[in-house]
Amino acid sequence: MEGKSNKSFVLNKVKDVSFEDRPVPKLTAPNDVLVAIAYTGICGSDVHYWQHGGIGKFALTEPMVLGHESAGVIAQVGEAVTTLKVGDRVAVEPGYPCRRCPSCLAGKYNLCPKMQFAATPPVHGTLTGFWAAPEDFCYKLPDNMSLQEGALIEPLAVGVHIARMAQLYPGQSVVVMGAGPVGLLCAAVAKAFGASTIVSVDIVPSKLEFAKGFAATHTYLSQRISAEENANNIKQQCGLPEGADVVIDATGAEPSIQASVHVLKNGGHYVQGGMGKADITFPIMAFAVKEATAHGCFRYGSGDYKLAVDLVASGKIDAKKLISQVVPFENALEAFEKAKEGQAIKMLIAGPNEKI
Amino acid sequence: MEGKSNKSFVLNKVKDVSFEDRPVPKLTAPNDVLVAIAYTGICGSDVHYWQHGGIGKFALTEPMVLGHESAGVIAQVGEAVTTLKVGDRVAVEPGYPCRRCPSCLAGKYNLCPKMQFAATPPVHGTLTGFWAAPEDFCYKLPDNMSLQEGALIEPLAVGVHIARMAQLYPGQSVVVMGAGPVGLLCAAVAKAFGASTIVSVDIVPSKLEFAKGFAATHTYLSQRISAEENANNIKQQCGLPEGADVVIDATGAEPSIQASVHVLKNGGHYVQGGMGKADITFPIMAFAVKEATAHGCFRYGSGDYKLAVDLVASGKIDAKKLISQVVPFENALEAFEKAKEGQAIKMLIAGPNEKI
Amino acid sequence: MEGKSNKSFVLNKVKDVSFEDRPVPKLTAPNDVLVAIAYTGICGSDVHYWQHGGIGKFALTEPMVLGHESAGVIAQVGEAVTTLKVGDRVAVEPGYPCRRCPSCLAGKYNLCPKMQFAATPPVHGTLTGFWAAPEDFCYKLPDNMSLQEGALIEPLAVGVHIARMAQLYPGQSVVVMGAGPVGLLCAAVAKAFGASTIVSVDIVPSKLEFAKGFAATHTYLSQRISAEENANNIKQQCGLPEGADVVIDATGAEPSIQASVHVLKNGGHYVQGGMGKADITFPIMAFAVKEATAHGCFRYGSGDYKLAVDLVASGKIDAKKLISQVVPFENALEAFEKAKEGQAIKMLIAGPNEKI
Amino acid sequence: MEGKSNKSFVLNKVKDVSFEDRPVPKLTAPNDVLVAIAYTGICGSDVHYWQHGGIGKFALTEPMVLGHESAGVIAQVGEAVTTLKVGDRVAVEPGYPCRRCPSCLAGKYNLCPKMQFAATPPVHGTLTGFWAAPEDFCYKLPDNMSLQEGALIEPLAVGVHIARMAQLYPGQSVVVMGAGPVGLLCAAVAKAFGASTIVSVDIVPSKLEFAKGFAATHTYLSQRISAEENANNIKQQCGLPEGADVVIDATGAEPSIQASVHVLKNGGHYVQGGMGKADITFPIMAFAVKEATAHGCFRYGSGDYKLAVDLVASGKIDAKKLISQVVPFENALEAFEKAKEGQAIKMLIAGPNEKI
Repeated sequence: MEGKSNKSFVLNKVKDVSFEDRPVPKLTAPNDVLVAIAYTGICGSDVHYWQHGGIGKFALTEPMVLGHESAGVIAQVGEAVTTLKVGDRVAVEPGYPCRRCPSCLAGKYNLCPKMQFAATPPVHGTLTGFWAAPEDFCYKLPDNMSLQEGALIEPLAVGVHIARMAQLYPGQSVVVMGAGPVGLLCAAVAKAFGASTIVSVDIVPSKLEFAKGFAATHTYLSQRISAEENANNIKQQCGLPEGADVVIDATGAEPSIQASVHVLKNGGHYVQGGMGKADITFPIMAFAVKEATAHGCFRYGSGDYKLAVDLVASGKIDAKKLISQVVPFENALEAFEKAKEGQAIKMLIAGPNEKI
Repeated sequence: MEGKSNKSFVLNKVKDVSFEDRPVPKLTAPNDVLVAIAYTGICGSDVHYWQHGGIGKFALTEPMVLGHESAGVIAQVGEAVTTLKVGDRVAVEPGYPCRRCPSCLAGKYNLCPKMQFAATPPVHGTLTGFWAAPEDFCYKLPDNMSLQEGALIEPLAVGVHIARMAQLYPGQSVVVMGAGPVGLLCAAVAKAFGASTIVSVDIVPSKLEFAKGFAATHTYLSQRISAEENANNIKQQCGLPEGADVVIDATGAEPSIQASVHVLKNGGHYVQGGMGKADITFPIMAFAVKEATAHGCFRYGSGDYKLAVDLVASGKIDAKKLISQVVPFENALEAFEKAKEGQAIKMLIAGPNEKI
Repeated sequence: MEGKSNKSFVLNKVKDVSFEDRPVPKLTAPNDVLVAIAYTGICGSDVHYWQHGGIGKFALTEPMVLGHESAGVIAQVGEAVTTLKVGDRVAVEPGYPCRRCPSCLAGKYNLCPKMQFAATPPVHGTLTGFWAAPEDFCYKLPDNMSLQEGALIEPLAVGVHIARMAQLYPGQSVVVMGAGPVGLLCAAVAKAFGASTIVSVDIVPSKLEFAKGFAATHTYLSQRISAEENANNIKQQCGLPEGADVVIDATGAEPSIQASVHVLKNGGHYVQGGMGKADITFPIMAFAVKEATAHGCFRYGSGDYKLAVDLVASGKIDAKKLISQVVPFENALEAFEKAKEGQAIKMLIAGPNEKI
Repeated sequence: MEGKSNKSFVLNKVKDVSFEDRPVPKLTAPNDVLVAIAYTGICGSDVHYWQHGGIGKFALTEPMVLGHESAGVIAQVGEAVTTLKVGDRVAVEPGYPCRRCPSCLAGKYNLCPKMQFAATPPVHGTLTGFWAAPEDFCYKLPDNMSLQEGALIEPLAVGVHIARMAQLYPGQSVVVMGAGPVGLLCAAVAKAFGASTIVSVDIVPSKLEFAKGFAATHTYLSQRISAEENANNIKQQCGLPEGADVVIDATGAEPSIQASVHVLKNGGHYVQGGMGKADITFPIMAFAVKEATAHGCFRYGSGDYKLAVDLVASGKIDAKKLISQVVPFENALEAFEKAKEGQAIKMLIAGPNEKI
């Protein structure tokens, strides 16, 4: 790695970012690999840390490299690595569990209390030159997939995890609240899982326009009316008189969550995918008498990244459509500004060693 | 049935009840049986209809016989009945689904939109002399079970349904919010299902005293502090540093529901068993990041009544401990008054043809 | 129905069939409808009854109308029918459960011991003019589906049921033993459910040729070698070094079943879909140490017909490709002869009132 | 560990065992602990290796220490160990997975292809003085449990795993084929899980006598008649006219497996727990038309050891009843001889440093 840049994009404190040359990581475990980061997408949480310095319990206390939606090329492999070799192109799963706690042993490593997750304080992120990761958290991209598509696997894995949580299966009807990147990808996963009706809901007409061309069979522009009225409108306009089998909230917004419960079918599944206010007014009795099931959803877990790669490789999901713009590493701040403005769907930042 | 009384206890309008002689039902379907009602328990919902004239969408619009927790003796059988005979003692499941809608065909008959449920307007209830029911909704009591125990099968079936919803299995820890009849029975079912830690929570010390002697391994007197603080106290005092595997709310009260979410373990199951305010402030982000599952719960369904009878017959649950007093039919109003006061756990009213 | 033929195709005894004019059924239940049968597919079981007079415990003891894969047009509706009207085109689910036994109440009506299933002795089948059925067992065909496609819903529902049993989800690998109609439809359902590798296995090259053009991503011509060798060949040739996530036997043949177990991945799901010899040599230890799950599979149940219609209507499965030939009712015996010869995939017989 | 014996009981080749002084293991990983083995139970597989030199694919090629059912006392802890300290008494889970393969990450570590399992060639077993194990595979025994009970946790974990595979829940009926240690423990687990009818089946009357006093509600002495006749006898004699909800084979014997399928209820669960002949005659059509589910079962996994400890600690299972005799380490061969003869239920061998 001599002569290679490990320039990183660091959040120093609220609204204060800078570039910093940091040492290239050394492989310390025999199963680790070193990845030359090629592309990194900007997530809403990156923007939130930048603007607010924290999310929930996670508060920035010292400078931290941002970014966690990355793909890259294997630059070095540990002595015990058998499934990857230098030059392989991979999507990088950015959180590493302890592998020893009850959650890990039970196959729910996303709930590991010792999880080290990129760009979640105090763990540094992937907007850097080289990244060390365990072999089994790097997913080889097939030849027909680009590294830019690889950088979209992280948010797609969120959508896959949500669909699995929802126990979604073919022929079902799905309402997705929110047509941002995660909401759009949830709709695409729902389509790939065989949902027959997929309704995208948002408050921005242009986002619904995009959703319609991406995966939604129906769209609904949320109105300034009660949650029950919005829910009834969706039922009527989308041919779901008894409500939807599955509702996914990808907004975290109170009115969306309320409408979600009201638009659910008796016995339906609701997934809380979006992040927002800690406490909201929730229609608990409507939820109870429907005998609905609500699933909290946190990141992704066993099998999700692999399936996300498969869905793109097989052409079932055209993830690259979400890419609004790709900028060189030195323009990272400009990309964050655009992401904050909310017009772009997904901004990608090239790695510091990547020519675009 | 000639010469037999079909005296009924009728709610005319809010806070206005009376006795009324009504015609004995005629069997109209070949699979129906006629049950001479022996004992009926008073449910919180009976008291609520009496005091408020409605619950949620269900509003009293004309006089309705109250009661739905009943056991009795088969008095007559339809021509196609094969599993019951005159004289058999049965617990009566009081809601009858259409058997033809998608919910019924899928084995979730409690979600049937055409459900006819006793003492839910406009359907009459079981505080009467004779009751017609389909054969398969009457559960024969084994010889070692009394008819008074039979009248407790209804609330016990609620507890069984909740435990199944919660996917409760042996060795788990369970917190039950509320130590009224349903909360107590949930705790007892949790014990019968093999839970190793069972915490009963209430705001009334005497109820916790009873819970301790019934099924709880621990009790917690809820304080006027934040939901998180109450949750932390439960964790510390009951040996659950990571929270409970399963939390059941049997209160419907906002502070209980909030504490329920905070006391859940990562990946835990929460069941909304109690009825209360339509909308509450809910800690949705705490729920989401735990990747918890919440189950709405509505009445009971396939297999629940049968298992409830088995649990009492096998001695695993000593349901009769909950009976505070048994009164003759003519004292029904007095029993309702006592139930309203909240001192009694479960009041039973004998049928009009039953001598006590 | 006056003036309409209810000509029926009757199996009198082994290898002895005839046409018979039978009275048009009268609607006896308020939820029943009368269907003018338009097309009926010939199933392997129809041929088996014709050639052997019985299958397993079901033996012909008196003349029986054959056929159970039918679609038709509503000719009359009972007084309580609300979801269908005269003229609606429907796929007919041909077995009617009691709706009252524990299996029915639990949502597994295909296991009802009182099931009345068409063309299973002593119940008459659907190769007739008019057929009475409960409203909820007739599935309205959307405008873009033909009645001939409707007649294929029955075997497709078998495939849907199998895929659900197998807990098949996107990205999985599936091996289907047998490329007859059910095997082909299982492969198509696997594709619609998102399987990424679908291997069709048969002993007839032309069937594999068809399978390749229908839904299979890979095919394997079974050899006269050991089951383990065939399994290893499949693993090597189809890119499944660790075996398949799901294996479906649609043959009932001993060598196929044995190879199925050997080709399963650790922890995989096996479904016994085909019918054959009562007892076979089974590699029980290979099954055990893989911690595999085997699912017996019997007909179809709640939701299967509806999803089958959806899969055809949405274009995900092009079922009509399976139709080899459509013959008029009077040529029914000729169609049976062709079905017996095994060259045709699916023979359809028009109803006696249907012009083709 | 200076001055401490690490005497081990070694299988050199078929029917050739000896004692050998081996070096005390050194802790090589920071999460490992060293356990002074206190007691080890003899498993049927130990006897089988001794008598036959292999089981299935696993063949002895060089000398191997026997034993894998052990409990002991922590003698040393690695630097990263936080949950155990020197002197803690533990039950030792004797198989260690890679923690990195798809099976491990999915929570099914018992299916890990790199599993290192004690006394499975070429991995040495626990009939030795000191044993190194990862911290999270050692389960602290509560004060009210003895080390001898701790040595029974291994076969009990097998029973727990089987019960979970069977999806056993309260009120169900269970038939257990075989009343050896695993069969007896399966019956005890079934009781602890709330089964209402538990039938133990064997060919040895004295074993059934023991089973009756241990956990079975009914016993059946298997006859030299057909599997179907034995199954019908069980149904009739044990009050199971429709068959059993769950059947567990803990024998591996062909007649037992056949009777298992025939005694299953429609829709029931069968678990293959016992090991035996690789291929047997299996009633596949009876299995299919019942729509039964068969579960292969291999060792135990996440949560099983913990629950096994809880079941003994809480008094729900009186595992120590199974101990036939405890012998000092130098009498290991004698204990193996008794185990081979089949009269003893469970022989325990004290560790070489344990005084009894």
